[in-house]
Amino acid sequence: MLSFARVSIIGMGLIGSSLARAIRVRMPTVRLSVSDSSADVRARVEALGLADDVCDLPATAVIDAELVILCVPVGAMGAVAAEIADDLAEGAVVTDVGSVKASVLAALTAALPAHVHVVPGHPVAGTERSGPDSGFATLFEGRWCILTPQQPGPASRQLQAFWERLGAKVELMDAAHHDRVLAVTSHLPHLIAYSIVGTASDLETVTRSEVIKYSAGGFRDFTRIAASDPVMWRDVFLTNREAVLETLGRFTEDLVALQRAIRWGEGDTLEALFTRTRAIRRSIIDEGQDTEAEDFGRPHGPPAEPADEDPR
Amino acid sequence: MLSFARVSIIGMGLIGSSLARAIRVRMPTVRLSVSDSSADVRARVEALGLADDVCDLPATAVIDAELVILCVPVGAMGAVAAEIADDLAEGAVVTDVGSVKASVLAALTAALPAHVHVVPGHPVAGTERSGPDSGFATLFEGRWCILTPQQPGPASRQLQAFWERLGAKVELMDAAHHDRVLAVTSHLPHLIAYSIVGTASDLETVTRSEVIKYSAGGFRDFTRIAASDPVMWRDVFLTNREAVLETLGRFTEDLVALQRAIRWGEGDTLEALFTRTRAIRRSIIDEGQDTEAEDFGRPHGPPAEPADEDPR
Repeated sequence: MLSFARVSIIGMGLIGSSLARAIRVRMPTVRLSVSDSSADVRARVEALGLADDVCDLPATAVIDAELVILCVPVGAMGAVAAEIADDLAEGAVVTDVGSVKASVLAALTAALPAHVHVVPGHPVAGTERSGPDSGFATLFEGRWCILTPQQPGPASRQLQAFWERLGAKVELMDAAHHDRVLAVTSHLPHLIAYSIVGTASDLETVTRSEVIKYSAGGFRDFTRIAASDPVMWRDVFLTNREAVLETLGRFTEDLVALQRAIRWGEGDTLEALFTRTRAIRRSIIDEGQDTEAEDFGRPHGPPAEPADEDPR
Repeated sequence: MLSFARVSIIGMGLIGSSLARAIRVRMPTVRLSVSDSSADVRARVEALGLADDVCDLPATAVIDAELVILCVPVGAMGAVAAEIADDLAEGAVVTDVGSVKASVLAALTAALPAHVHVVPGHPVAGTERSGPDSGFATLFEGRWCILTPQQPGPASRQLQAFWERLGAKVELMDAAHHDRVLAVTSHLPHLIAYSIVGTASDLETVTRSEVIKYSAGGFRDFTRIAASDPVMWRDVFLTNREAVLETLGRFTEDLVALQRAIRWGEGDTLEALFTRTRAIRRSIIDEGQDTEAEDFGRPHGPPAEPADEDPR
């Protein structure tokens, strides 16, 4: 039993195109119509054969759709919702995949007619790549998808079944609570990664070439996250401002305490924290949310085609 | 032509045991004698057959060695050097693998007799695992090893040839400059990772179980680094205090500027930084210091044996 026979996806980047691929694999009879604001992206989507219909306008793509999934940056949700509002079928379910939920819930509720069901969603999955070529069908398997409807009901149950069919685990949550949780597990880590990569490239006493050469000491892990989509992340910080600032305040407080322990040579304080943090890693692996392979299973040994050495 | 026919390794953790394995593979005729302060570790090293001789005391292991490699936490270097000082052969080269170099250079020079050659070293390689079972022979291949001798000479050239034979790329550097470079590329990333993992596990509004479940949004990358050896890292921060505090100050300054941009809704500032940081990732991959595979090549899809779901 399919939850939805006609699905529309607006925005065909990493997440939108992964959804299209996953739907093709897991629900081959679904009629899929998509749109993207970029003509280049639409052409790639056509070439890759990711949808039945590729429309120039989102309003065209949503006609007759039983499920509409908005896969655009969080800051664009309200404008896209306004564009499609008049063309949505009665009883359609409208969801999204944005990393912030309270602002999206407010924007969609304000822009959309009362005869559609708004059920915001957030699949906690992704990579540092962007664009329609970077998507893949298994992106959501074993990952959590959080739904934040104002009121749980038949629409959110249908949407839950849809995500589960794509291999995701679903949890319902209050939108404001979602934003606090993700501020910790996703937004703050991204902010810090962007910040440290910026700091490292602006030093006078250490060259950029040195930072790159000796990045295997830990820095390189941060650069992966700091390669994520700039517009998407700009919007996340602008729309989840309160929770991000609150969490950032806590982090800064803890970091300053660590700074003080280093300055005063308090080895026991450092060792106690460094011991405690090991347990969290273990729990994440046990819960299946990361690979157990050491060093993320990176191949050890020289790269297949070593680049020329960077002269200093 | 072998640089050294008799090699001694003191400390058989991740790095020491990887060195032993690499020597076995790349220089099978080398006579290898090792020691470790832990009886359990010595027993494992015997069982794994990692050395010709496994000695209870470091002083016994270094007798007749042409090269002695200290693979103990940075804070223990001086004490171990004092223990072996009277038993070192005339003209022996003494090196180490510590992540901090100025303090090690000072400690070794102070503790060791004038008839040995002190050439501190730092292979910029490792994983989050610890202990003799976690080592592997290819750990140093394609990675940089930094040597920081007071004066370059025959001893440092011999040691360079030794590391190159193990597959590493070698660079000579002033010890103080090494400490500033690594403060950025390794020490600060570890400090921040430990700190954010600590912050995340101490919140009242978000449960630990939620942090673990939704860690795929970015947080899990930090937990890998924060699972590194607590004692080793305690010593790094205590012995590279000045450079770490200086770099941390720069980072905090930049982070506060980002915080301000978020508070005032300055989207352009955020987007400009997030765009700039992408280029660094590209350079690190081009230089062969990280894998190009998206998401570190993590397998996508459910884990082989999914753990039980964590009840909330």
